[in-house]
Amino acid sequence: MDKVNIAKKFLMFGDHWHPRIVAEVNDSYVKLARLHGEFLWHNHETEDEMFLVVRGSLRIKLRDNEILLGEGELAVIPRGVEHCPVADEECEVMLFEPKGTLNTGSVKSQRTVEKLEWI
Amino acid sequence: MDKVNIAKKFLMFGDHWHPRIVAEVNDSYVKLARLHGEFLWHNHETEDEMFLVVRGSLRIKLRDNEILLGEGELAVIPRGVEHCPVADEECEVMLFEPKGTLNTGSVKSQRTVEKLEWI
Repeated sequence: MDKVNIAKKFLMFGDHWHPRIVAEVNDSYVKLARLHGEFLWHNHETEDEMFLVVRGSLRIKLRDNEILLGEGELAVIPRGVEHCPVADEECEVMLFEPKGTLNTGSVKSQRTVEKLEWI
Repeated sequence: MDKVNIAKKFLMFGDHWHPRIVAEVNDSYVKLARLHGEFLWHNHETEDEMFLVVRGSLRIKLRDNEILLGEGELAVIPRGVEHCPVADEECEVMLFEPKGTLNTGSVKSQRTVEKLEWI
């Protein structure tokens, strides 16, 4: 039962839009990801997804709105809601979502990460 | 779909060992709590529980060990594992656990919070 130091985990990778698992809690994973630029529009049909900004800021575009998250702010995107994350500058986020969740939801693309690693 | 500013939420209450709900993600709640002093030994029979320290530090005593969490560190206490959180000075934590989880697990005490509030 090891503890996780979030800042140290972020030192272990540098690529963007590629979440790593750092913990599991019941049926969910806690993941860390570096984001930069615009992702793609997608939704998760059966899963809510939580974003918590650890460093920097993140815009989450919705079809009719936008959420701007700064450090220490979180938002939950409910299942089925189309969203497109945009990081105008690099940011670091913690994600909380069910173990089966793909980063691109129901959209398959080059950016889909099929096999998640633990760090 | 509102965002949650963790620091602002902590300004909304001052009591200890009384978690408040700030978000729901699938079958789990995200809760915030101020901790100070020693809690009680308990376990959660069927639920893992995640502690993330937002401010200060937290010791989680286990029967054969102890985890010391500083700011930006998290630990998951697996289901069934007896633990006793101790905050030598006041700390602020985020908890992530299934909706049905009681703060005192399978132990009923004066410190059991039966009805959780949203803030």
